[in-house]
Amino acid sequence: MSTEQVSLPPPSSVGLTSRVSSHPLSPLTTAEITNAVQLVQNLYPPNTSLQYKAVTLQEPNKADLVPYLQAEHHGGRKPTIERRAFVAYYIRNTDKFHEAIVNLDRQRMESNVRLGQGIHGPGDAEEILLVEKIALEDESVQAEIAKLKLPEGTAVISDPWIYGSDGVNDEERMYQCFLYMRDPSNPSNLDSNHYAFPLTISPVVDIVKSKVIRIDLLPTGSDHSVKEPQPLQVPPPNEYSAEHQDLRTDLKPLNVIQPEGASFKVTEAGETGRVIEWQKWFFRVGFNQREGMVLYDVRYDDRSVFYRMALSDMVIPYADPRHPFHKKAAFDLGDAGAGVMANNLKLGCDCLGSIHYLSAVLSTDKGEPWPMENVVCIHEQDAGIGWKHTNYRTGTASVVRSRELVVQSIITVANYEYIMAFIFNQAGEVKYEVRATGIVSTQPTDVEVPWGTIVHPGVLAAHHQHIFSLRIDPAIDGHNNRLVYEEAHPMPRSDFNPHGVGYTVLQTLVEKSTGLDLNPDHNRTFKIQNPSVKNPINGHPVSYKIVAPAFQKLLADTDSFHHKRAEFADRNLYVTRYRDGELYAGGKYTNQSRGGDGVRAWADRRDPVTDTDLVLFVQFGLQHVVRAEDFPVMPCEIISVAFKPVDFFERNPALDVPPSTQERNRSTLAAAAAETHHQPSLEAMVGSKGEVCCSSKL
Amino acid sequence: MSTEQVSLPPPSSVGLTSRVSSHPLSPLTTAEITNAVQLVQNLYPPNTSLQYKAVTLQEPNKADLVPYLQAEHHGGRKPTIERRAFVAYYIRNTDKFHEAIVNLDRQRMESNVRLGQGIHGPGDAEEILLVEKIALEDESVQAEIAKLKLPEGTAVISDPWIYGSDGVNDEERMYQCFLYMRDPSNPSNLDSNHYAFPLTISPVVDIVKSKVIRIDLLPTGSDHSVKEPQPLQVPPPNEYSAEHQDLRTDLKPLNVIQPEGASFKVTEAGETGRVIEWQKWFFRVGFNQREGMVLYDVRYDDRSVFYRMALSDMVIPYADPRHPFHKKAAFDLGDAGAGVMANNLKLGCDCLGSIHYLSAVLSTDKGEPWPMENVVCIHEQDAGIGWKHTNYRTGTASVVRSRELVVQSIITVANYEYIMAFIFNQAGEVKYEVRATGIVSTQPTDVEVPWGTIVHPGVLAAHHQHIFSLRIDPAIDGHNNRLVYEEAHPMPRSDFNPHGVGYTVLQTLVEKSTGLDLNPDHNRTFKIQNPSVKNPINGHPVSYKIVAPAFQKLLADTDSFHHKRAEFADRNLYVTRYRDGELYAGGKYTNQSRGGDGVRAWADRRDPVTDTDLVLFVQFGLQHVVRAEDFPVMPCEIISVAFKPVDFFERNPALDVPPSTQERNRSTLAAAAAETHHQPSLEAMVGSKGEVCCSSKL
Repeated sequence: MSTEQVSLPPPSSVGLTSRVSSHPLSPLTTAEITNAVQLVQNLYPPNTSLQYKAVTLQEPNKADLVPYLQAEHHGGRKPTIERRAFVAYYIRNTDKFHEAIVNLDRQRMESNVRLGQGIHGPGDAEEILLVEKIALEDESVQAEIAKLKLPEGTAVISDPWIYGSDGVNDEERMYQCFLYMRDPSNPSNLDSNHYAFPLTISPVVDIVKSKVIRIDLLPTGSDHSVKEPQPLQVPPPNEYSAEHQDLRTDLKPLNVIQPEGASFKVTEAGETGRVIEWQKWFFRVGFNQREGMVLYDVRYDDRSVFYRMALSDMVIPYADPRHPFHKKAAFDLGDAGAGVMANNLKLGCDCLGSIHYLSAVLSTDKGEPWPMENVVCIHEQDAGIGWKHTNYRTGTASVVRSRELVVQSIITVANYEYIMAFIFNQAGEVKYEVRATGIVSTQPTDVEVPWGTIVHPGVLAAHHQHIFSLRIDPAIDGHNNRLVYEEAHPMPRSDFNPHGVGYTVLQTLVEKSTGLDLNPDHNRTFKIQNPSVKNPINGHPVSYKIVAPAFQKLLADTDSFHHKRAEFADRNLYVTRYRDGELYAGGKYTNQSRGGDGVRAWADRRDPVTDTDLVLFVQFGLQHVVRAEDFPVMPCEIISVAFKPVDFFERNPALDVPPSTQERNRSTLAAAAAETHHQPSLEAMVGSKGEVCCSSKL
Repeated sequence: MSTEQVSLPPPSSVGLTSRVSSHPLSPLTTAEITNAVQLVQNLYPPNTSLQYKAVTLQEPNKADLVPYLQAEHHGGRKPTIERRAFVAYYIRNTDKFHEAIVNLDRQRMESNVRLGQGIHGPGDAEEILLVEKIALEDESVQAEIAKLKLPEGTAVISDPWIYGSDGVNDEERMYQCFLYMRDPSNPSNLDSNHYAFPLTISPVVDIVKSKVIRIDLLPTGSDHSVKEPQPLQVPPPNEYSAEHQDLRTDLKPLNVIQPEGASFKVTEAGETGRVIEWQKWFFRVGFNQREGMVLYDVRYDDRSVFYRMALSDMVIPYADPRHPFHKKAAFDLGDAGAGVMANNLKLGCDCLGSIHYLSAVLSTDKGEPWPMENVVCIHEQDAGIGWKHTNYRTGTASVVRSRELVVQSIITVANYEYIMAFIFNQAGEVKYEVRATGIVSTQPTDVEVPWGTIVHPGVLAAHHQHIFSLRIDPAIDGHNNRLVYEEAHPMPRSDFNPHGVGYTVLQTLVEKSTGLDLNPDHNRTFKIQNPSVKNPINGHPVSYKIVAPAFQKLLADTDSFHHKRAEFADRNLYVTRYRDGELYAGGKYTNQSRGGDGVRAWADRRDPVTDTDLVLFVQFGLQHVVRAEDFPVMPCEIISVAFKPVDFFERNPALDVPPSTQERNRSTLAAAAAETHHQPSLEAMVGSKGEVCCSSKL
């Protein structure tokens, strides 16, 4: 059924030479980062301080890479693809923001462009620490804090927030800081949950000027009014860490043991190249500052399925209409980066079983290589029964368990956590799962309001939306794909449908780039098809369908900055025609952005998208109406999007999974097992002369 | 926060005396079944043959049981509740269908009613075997089969289907048989997948007359026309069993080891009473012919949450409008019974870890006790990260894994399987999960049609819907509850919302019994509240919300028999005021039913449902547009409904779960672990004189 029938080359051996490391999709190596930074630095007089926002792989143009991958999988000579770095940087302490492309093979700059004044780079770790320091060292801020008459020894904490956009004096690069304190009764506890103690003082820091330019006071009533800081009545603490809990004692250990090791194979090509092979799946894992983990060249049983998969963007707009909360709309990938915020996933604490960790290297604000250890973990998990059938006539049960491969990364965005994973199974399915956890963003309140929930005395957590955009560049048996949607509709009553029960499934072709919505009432389902490859059983084009839950899309009105900026958040799906570099649904730089360079703008080109190289941006999300149960750390809310084969295979591709047996599973019994219940078998038997008789068998 | 503060009594000891076994909610024991049948049999002359359809516990009236449970949990004298059996039976080989209530304590019949002529009891195992036999032994059927000129030795199989309703000569009790053959090239393989070989001959059996009354021929073109059976071109087989597969060899074993055993406790009270306690949860498990497993008296940390939870009904209507397929609308619970179809869950083949099996006893058609071994399995599973937060200033990560308790039963409905489980977690959540697997129902075809998919040469699987109804009798901190729904709506632009970003969450009270729908565009969410118990943190009524996915509801038109019969399938939620005996959303007897005695009828009473004893019927479902991948056995499709606490607890109830540590998890490494990445900590410090300064700590 596949158009690509040749087998994969043997995996390249692990090595450390520059040639082996330079697969075109391997992230930049330590040496390449150093080299790229040096080439950029050479543009300036010595001692010029640059602030690096990203030093990352400039991915090859697709027109170059597709023939390369073709040759890699199918044989033939691979075209030369030069290594390039993308460097985004400021001249430090200025608003001069630049993008450079560095050709590492030729050791020269290919471009170096200063971006327009309205464009702001993402925050970085050092900058955020600097903002904290500026806010807390500021004398006028300290004077405001002093009015609270906090107990001696109280530690005040500053959480810098990306400033957001409201069009009111917001051209400069700024941070809005929210202040909290640690539990005054336990000042030495550095892990005290300061989000239980929000303060009403909110300094605004101009990061170019490196100073506090304004101190906002937060409204705490039911309207927009604010009041001067007053001596604070200290509420009780609300700690999440284990030493503050009366822990359950009746939970017995549960271990996942893989006596023969894991079933996946990781081939490391050089410092940064990683190929994963598992249960007929093949893919490469990349990692960058903005997206964190990226999957490339995803294939099943030697057939291409996806060219590239990564979380493209997210927005978390809050419900509170009051200044300065109205600006709260975090674009965590564009405002900071899923790569730079990735957790070190410590062995045993985040996963069970046989775990393989991938490390990465990014860059610091000074352009130094920044090793990020254990930012991606790979492990298998059991996902319950995969398929089962019992022949009730013989009592014979056929059952297999579903094994999954999890490729996971976790980010901490100040108060909040996202656990993000690509999950592959043996039935040809890929799922992208997000678990939302961490601490809800809090603010002080005197009253209950209909846009938030009181989660602790005097503490409001405003309701908010989480809207994610997953970018999928499909390659279903090749790159020329189309998007259709299917709906089930009742047949009208007629002589053909005399009982009013018939229905049909209708398919609609999407011809031009556009935004589209789900419709559960019609079971609207989006499918990516390759019409040039047909399923031999039923002649249908080979396809993958997108299984995404309906959710409440962006609530902010269409004239709002939230709407203009979150170009993905208003539709369930956007489809565009592929163009190099169009990776980020909310635009390349989201910090104080104005919109206009994201997926809505690309879709508005109305490019033809039929039987060509198209790209999908799949949105999914949560409306988080906050509960008391979501504090001090919320139980994971889990959402996911799945991609499932439809007529891509001739039959259930997991039929060849070995049966589930006690010999393999080694389960134990807490009660006696018993015999299978058999029923007699009945069939009519065709005799040697074509006559038919009935027999009964046990 | 709870209204019920006293602790549970110690669990009753395991015992075999009649008194211990007779908790009012324990299923009938072997002796009770025998006794009830004897009392019914005594009504008739000796040698009268009765055909028993159900001999099961007549659950006590709620007005009697609530004080009993109150006394059980809170102390005090338990009222006497007499044990009663419900017996449904035919006088064999007649259409005389009866319901009897037997008082076992008083050894007397309380009622014995002959039901109206349009009411038909469910199928039973012996009856289905008899129908197979009648169809295959019939000479006219054999004459039709002979026309197919099947190869010598070919086994023909008859799958009896419940007849369904179309109002055309369908008053009598009948079965529609679909015929298949086993692979003629391998006639000794009793587990051959006969669904790959559907035949065009469909006998109709009158079960009262015990004979074939009609032979339908199946349409195989694109219209209603049928043709005489002709010599059959035998297509290739399509087997699912392991010996026919070239099995994967690269899947390594994955074992779940619980070195200290499971964390749950099962207290067996007599032969049939089971109390489960796990991680602050408490509930009783029952089992009956119709619903299979039932949970009663579900409590968390001594607070009542649900009085009763069970799958109430399901309907699977098919898309094909043609005779006789237009009648295909399986109500598997009412037509046969989830209890009688339950699998024996063999150790290690269906679950991992430390497993406890529950057995049950039902009755045969002759009224004999029928032991059903291992029909419910109970085990724990790891569900990934439960909650996590990393303090980015100190690098301290707090993380717990989520442990779940799975209470599972699996049913085989001829070709198809449902894996059904109640899943509890440590965050106070209960999920009901259904995995749909098994073999799609097949029919012969010569052409492609828009209401089905060709899954094998000459084999059509018609599209179909699966619509389930889960009955929830809530008791959120007591029995007087209310139903509300919440929606998030944008605030209008105004001085209060000058940037167009604000939104509010509005609550609507449901005052009368009715059907209701989801609305993802407004994030409509149903919540069960107890307004008399307030959350001490925010004053909100304690609640549980219902998290159910939107799905395409019944497509058959409102005048169709499908619509009339599947009284639940047209709305996402029905709410009714509690009445004893109103358990089954599609009516008590669904076989050839006409509708009018299910949940739509009860809701139409428009009873007040505010702050009273209300009942919810939550619908969820799948539109199954068939894929080639769904044959010969489909990979599980998983759907679920969750019930999550909202302001029921003061904070995250899983905060006290012990942290995830390598010491407990015993995970292994496939690569070197590395150090945690720490960042310096910054805070402003309030000095002894109230002055504020800034310090930096590592």
